Amino acid sequence: MHYPVLDKAGASVTTSVTNMDVHDLSRSSRTYGLRSFIVVTPIAIHREMVQKVAAYWQEPSCANRTPSRKEALGLVAVADSIEAAVAMIEGETGKKPDIIGTSAKRRKGAVSYAAMRKQVAADPRLPRLILFGTGWGLSPEVLDACTAVLEPVEGAGDYAHLSVRSAAAIVLDRLLGRL
Amino acid sequence: MHYPVLDKAGASVTTSVTNMDVHDLSRSSRTYGLRSFIVVTPIAIHREMVQKVAAYWQEPSCANRTPSRKEALGLVAVADSIEAAVAMIEGETGKKPDIIGTSAKRRKGAVSYAAMRKQVAADPRLPRLILFGTGWGLSPEVLDACTAVLEPVEGAGDYAHLSVRSAAAIVLDRLLGRL
Repeated sequence: MHYPVLDKAGASVTTSVTNMDVHDLSRSSRTYGLRSFIVVTPIAIHREMVQKVAAYWQEPSCANRTPSRKEALGLVAVADSIEAAVAMIEGETGKKPDIIGTSAKRRKGAVSYAAMRKQVAADPRLPRLILFGTGWGLSPEVLDACTAVLEPVEGAGDYAHLSVRSAAAIVLDRLLGRL
Repeated sequence: MHYPVLDKAGASVTTSVTNMDVHDLSRSSRTYGLRSFIVVTPIAIHREMVQKVAAYWQEPSCANRTPSRKEALGLVAVADSIEAAVAMIEGETGKKPDIIGTSAKRRKGAVSYAAMRKQVAADPRLPRLILFGTGWGLSPEVLDACTAVLEPVEGAGDYAHLSVRSAAAIVLDRLLGRL
């Protein structure tokens, strides 16, 4: 999610897409068996860039050289809003997805990883859209509209500034990893 | 670890340091309470670049604007070899560290995360150097010289091509995260 997300001062902003996000997050998505990885940004030229990067790795010369990257980048999709991402999933699966939010801040009613892991295992075919905010995290109105929001990932202390690439990898591992 | 690591064809090579590695891995290190994050590369100009990046975030104008980044980048150190990294840790702690290897491939005698998590919890003051390979992973002679090698991180299937940034975040979470 590149919009609406917070900046350091708490204002809703649009963040830039980076090439590394597309690679890291698609590789993590592929590792944990996700059906797709959707980059959400209202900036058309960023969506085009993402599609260009993803398409590049599908080209035969590239794909033959690095099939693992072809597989990962093959999961990449783009949407200009959450609503468009939801519609895309509904179109593909025939069902509205549960929307699962993530946040680095503690939040009332947040769902534990153990509980969500059980839910996913009990009904793995239900479409779920897990949202990860770039910048300083998802805007409050996005979290308020989620079906559920997961607890923050906690390490050794109060420091809560993982990169979105690291946080997403950890969350997917907690929900779907073979331990 | 940027040397010795494998390339796609299985040859031992030196990989490039990227700025994103320094940020993501230092933020993950800070999150999980590590004492330092050492970038190992024999290329002097890469070590200088890493030190420059880390020093930049310690400058008052930067540090005041983004204290969380100052804290993370404050953990960054550089070494020109594993031996130098080990000597650095021994110099600081008075003890040779256990060297814990990681690999995306299954390996005889690999230690489970549950077992290593117990070891760490039982003796958290023992210095430990956890090695993460860039490129296509740590060279076999490095893994052979480790005190222990962890099992590969497994997701939903056989795909084992996480970025080093994602893999390190997951490993630290499995060993040290508050679940």
